[in-house]
Amino acid sequence: MGNADYTYPWSNDYNSHAAASHRVAIPPPQPFVKSLKNTLKETFFPDDPLRQFKNQSPRKKLVLGLQYLFPILEWGPRYTLQFFKADLIAGITIASLAIPQGISYAKLANLPPILGLYSSFVPPLVYALMGSSRDLAVGTVAVGSLLTGSMLGQVVNANDDPKLYLHLAFTATLFAGLFEAALGIFRLGFIVDFLSHATIVGFMGGAATVVCLQQLKGIFGLDHFTHATDMILFMRSVFTQIHQWRWESAVLGCVFLFYLLLARYFSKKKAKLFWISAMAPLTSVILGSLLVYFTHAEKHGVQVIGELKKGINPASIMDLNFDSRYLTAAIKTGIVTGIIALAEGIAVGRSFAMFKNYHIDGNKEMIAFGMMNIAGSCTSCYLTAGPFSRSAVNFNAGCKTAVSNIVMAFAVMITLLFLTPLFYYTPLVVLSSIIIAAMLSLIDYEAAIHLWHVDKFDFVVCMSAYIGVVFANIEVGLVLAIGLSIMRVLLFVARPRTLVLGNIPDSKVYRSVDQYQNANNVPGLLILEIDAPIYFANSNYLRERISRWIDDEEDKLKASGDTGLQYVILDMSAVGNIDTSGISMLDEVKKIVDRRGFKLALANPGAEVMKKLNKSKFLETLGQEWLFLTVGEAVGACNYMLHSCKPKSTADDQSEKYSNNIV
Amino acid sequence: MGNADYTYPWSNDYNSHAAASHRVAIPPPQPFVKSLKNTLKETFFPDDPLRQFKNQSPRKKLVLGLQYLFPILEWGPRYTLQFFKADLIAGITIASLAIPQGISYAKLANLPPILGLYSSFVPPLVYALMGSSRDLAVGTVAVGSLLTGSMLGQVVNANDDPKLYLHLAFTATLFAGLFEAALGIFRLGFIVDFLSHATIVGFMGGAATVVCLQQLKGIFGLDHFTHATDMILFMRSVFTQIHQWRWESAVLGCVFLFYLLLARYFSKKKAKLFWISAMAPLTSVILGSLLVYFTHAEKHGVQVIGELKKGINPASIMDLNFDSRYLTAAIKTGIVTGIIALAEGIAVGRSFAMFKNYHIDGNKEMIAFGMMNIAGSCTSCYLTAGPFSRSAVNFNAGCKTAVSNIVMAFAVMITLLFLTPLFYYTPLVVLSSIIIAAMLSLIDYEAAIHLWHVDKFDFVVCMSAYIGVVFANIEVGLVLAIGLSIMRVLLFVARPRTLVLGNIPDSKVYRSVDQYQNANNVPGLLILEIDAPIYFANSNYLRERISRWIDDEEDKLKASGDTGLQYVILDMSAVGNIDTSGISMLDEVKKIVDRRGFKLALANPGAEVMKKLNKSKFLETLGQEWLFLTVGEAVGACNYMLHSCKPKSTADDQSEKYSNNIV
Repeated sequence: MGNADYTYPWSNDYNSHAAASHRVAIPPPQPFVKSLKNTLKETFFPDDPLRQFKNQSPRKKLVLGLQYLFPILEWGPRYTLQFFKADLIAGITIASLAIPQGISYAKLANLPPILGLYSSFVPPLVYALMGSSRDLAVGTVAVGSLLTGSMLGQVVNANDDPKLYLHLAFTATLFAGLFEAALGIFRLGFIVDFLSHATIVGFMGGAATVVCLQQLKGIFGLDHFTHATDMILFMRSVFTQIHQWRWESAVLGCVFLFYLLLARYFSKKKAKLFWISAMAPLTSVILGSLLVYFTHAEKHGVQVIGELKKGINPASIMDLNFDSRYLTAAIKTGIVTGIIALAEGIAVGRSFAMFKNYHIDGNKEMIAFGMMNIAGSCTSCYLTAGPFSRSAVNFNAGCKTAVSNIVMAFAVMITLLFLTPLFYYTPLVVLSSIIIAAMLSLIDYEAAIHLWHVDKFDFVVCMSAYIGVVFANIEVGLVLAIGLSIMRVLLFVARPRTLVLGNIPDSKVYRSVDQYQNANNVPGLLILEIDAPIYFANSNYLRERISRWIDDEEDKLKASGDTGLQYVILDMSAVGNIDTSGISMLDEVKKIVDRRGFKLALANPGAEVMKKLNKSKFLETLGQEWLFLTVGEAVGACNYMLHSCKPKSTADDQSEKYSNNIV
Repeated sequence: MGNADYTYPWSNDYNSHAAASHRVAIPPPQPFVKSLKNTLKETFFPDDPLRQFKNQSPRKKLVLGLQYLFPILEWGPRYTLQFFKADLIAGITIASLAIPQGISYAKLANLPPILGLYSSFVPPLVYALMGSSRDLAVGTVAVGSLLTGSMLGQVVNANDDPKLYLHLAFTATLFAGLFEAALGIFRLGFIVDFLSHATIVGFMGGAATVVCLQQLKGIFGLDHFTHATDMILFMRSVFTQIHQWRWESAVLGCVFLFYLLLARYFSKKKAKLFWISAMAPLTSVILGSLLVYFTHAEKHGVQVIGELKKGINPASIMDLNFDSRYLTAAIKTGIVTGIIALAEGIAVGRSFAMFKNYHIDGNKEMIAFGMMNIAGSCTSCYLTAGPFSRSAVNFNAGCKTAVSNIVMAFAVMITLLFLTPLFYYTPLVVLSSIIIAAMLSLIDYEAAIHLWHVDKFDFVVCMSAYIGVVFANIEVGLVLAIGLSIMRVLLFVARPRTLVLGNIPDSKVYRSVDQYQNANNVPGLLILEIDAPIYFANSNYLRERISRWIDDEEDKLKASGDTGLQYVILDMSAVGNIDTSGISMLDEVKKIVDRRGFKLALANPGAEVMKKLNKSKFLETLGQEWLFLTVGEAVGACNYMLHSCKPKSTADDQSEKYSNNIV
């Protein structure tokens, strides 16, 4: 191990347990390139995706590679009629949800309603080929639609220049796809991890609140409405137009909302009744349309969708707009919507995979999502992902594979080809009701309460996301929540806890006296545990804090008239790494301790720490004999020296008292 | 502790050491307000500055408060004639350095030379009252001057509009002071800690390189020169003007540079000869001026300072410019220069305090620096801090207290009142030589080599700061280095190491098998240590990584035909904290482990972790009996169960083999 034979001051006559001779090992040196390669692998390939390619023939490798990119090649050959029956039912069920939801969400993004249908045709087909989730149902998402609307709305007004706005939406979708695919290809999926669960809960809740408020426009049948996404402006806009409220529209909206919520209530009570909730939007649309058709309510203040173009997706690759005036907005919208869509989609995919006990590769999913949006942007689709509501219906309907997405796509295709005229009389207020009903389930106040109980900081992150989204705008909320989350990580390192350890009775174990109230201090010794890596960000703090612990301990000992402080033991078990600033800090602590006439000992430094302490010569300054494998051994050695240096009689008396502590 | 009596599956007949009954304690619940108060105190008041105020009379508190703000009140009454003699010599010595350095650095910032003298008059007086370092010599700093010049130069050209430029320099100084004081008052000093030692080494080296190159202008006597701070433009500017090089100027410059470096060389060899190096700049100025005066070299291409206004600092409070066009630049310059000046000044103060064994309060120093710059901005001074070179001379000259700063200020005042005409003939090339000589000592290549040996990442940070400063500009270098440093901290948390533990022979201790090559795996058990807090940023990673460890272990066991995996033990010793995402991760790991038919055990979760696991009901899911105080106890219990469930004969055979591992 490289440590030569040191003479331990106590080794001659220490009445020794064998344990006392354990040495702290310096890990065997590794060539720089090898250790760099190792670090990069652990950072970017924790799941070792190339594992199955090892020791295979080139032909087999090609097959495996294709199966990796297109999972359908892997499960396709094993596909049975049994599976198809299940997928057919699930696919038709989600199509009945996808059609009204698609139209509604497209309105949310200020895009033509037909785009919602287009977006439920091409992307699900792409996902069926490339996606690895069996339960995800692909389609447009509420929050993504809202984000597209509000972010693009800042540069182009959808009413003034609908064509430019539409083209920018395609361009943003392309960038979202490129960004998602790039994250997957370069294995940077961990960026999505920075959207913590708490952030997503707060963010989704905030976005849902904003969306619900925006739907007041539809419910009250208002023509003019603010595009700003902030609550105060909304409410002002709604309540300054009281004279324009249409009671017909409002009544219709409330009735359908009640119906949708009632359907959900029954579905929640009995899982078998999931289809009531799944079919409710479509039945609302049909009932609403029939009502308008027969009562001619469109002439009495109830707005309708109007004409929808027949035919499947036209190509839109020539519509992509790379005009430098709008490029920044398009890229920004693409990145933000792309990452949000990924975060939701992957979380949804993972939770259903958890249920059914299969594994989802995050980076592979990102590539699938990316390709799906790239293909979508060329075929008149806007941002798609894996909405939770649709996927849950898919799961409950008993889907087996991604074929349910193909079935849905075909159902949507048939609608596009033949059934669009049927939507002429569909009242907008029904779409608003559908959106509100979907959004209400996103406001997950129970999760927020849970956060408050378990982790106050996570609650603060969640609330800041919510408040930011509702009172400022979506980006502010997101930046606030992510900023706070990162600050928490930095603060953990910048302000590590230092814990005083004491002996657990009847053992050789030393634990925090705060946590274990029965742990006893060892007289003459101060044992400190440092709870984080020692980095530049905390080295000054730790020096100050350790000095203060020593001061406090001395004051306490002086006050009690006990033996003075003699040894300071630092438990390094939880110190995962150290940098050069940290080593300087240890040097300074050693000087401080020396100057006061105490001795410094380190217990259980890890591999990385030992490597660096050795290279920086700190080990020589400290003396190898002051390194111990465990706190117990350190205490044993210190106690031995403490008492063997005293007049014989006292030492004997006390050695009995402390014999428990000697390992 | 709140944990009820659980029946341990092995408690009936476990041939038990008493240790097996140790419970992991849940820390006693604390009221939310109290724990918040505690956290805030640890975060912002680690040094407990109000400690001395406890249990004092109001009158005493007032005195202590004043002494806290003005340390001179504390040491002043104890000041002796002995001290004064030492401070007088040190003060005169640093004044002889301060005058030429002040003039040189003011040129570096494109400010009138006289400002350098003004800045060595008022700020040292303020610092003497408020500062807590006994060795810091106050004055303008090279890097701060360079930064002021380059950052303000981006909005105003110093040659085109010298008055506006001057006023903006005062304004930037005011903002620097306000920012520094605010950091100190709000106890945000830890922001300065984010400038790691490695960053500062690289940054200082880069800035010194840039400054040296800029001085080529002075050495070659060039009139026109680029203001861009990037090396390639410099070199082009120098070498495209070869026809304008003045050999008289160049010869003079080289001679003086050689003299200055020689003086430093002797001083370094013998610490007692420090005064040679300290006096060298002043003697250079005197010799250079005499030479020019007698040879009339100013008419042969050697540029001179020219007239300096007599008299002490005029007030500049009315010159502060808050014009909105320049405000952003002034604030930005103030913040960047302020924080860099603080980082250097506090590091210098701390290192000398370390030598003399007294303590410096970082936040108090920040307030002193801030007040000194606020006062300076109103009295025609620009940014001041504690330059290393001047402070080192002060220290070597034997200063005792901040009175040496007062002495220096008076010497500068006398110069301002009576001696400014003497500088008329001082050649600019001598100033350039002084700057180059000072800068060469800032390029600390030895420190960079040390970083490479000890910590490769710190070396990368250092080099990125250097390269950024030299090839792009100062801000790019700084942002790059700080960004990388922060990324490292985030990466530590986002990609924590997971270590497989094995048993150290002849002990009950379990350590990483990578570090301790003699550590033995325990058959049927996988023991993993997680080396960082479990946060949103790493929970997905950890789930994947732990799954992979389990897969690997199973493969290995299958290949060797050994008993299959039965227990997975997570050592939580190094997990300082957990958030709700982390708890979900543990939940999922528990599910994964259960599904495969293994059992999950946790060893030594800390106080914070226990608190949250308890609140989130994870402890109930896991079962209290699967929590252990140490890995040893966990292994003991698992081994017991492993063998007691087997046919009697085998169990007996094996129990001997593993008896070492049972605690």
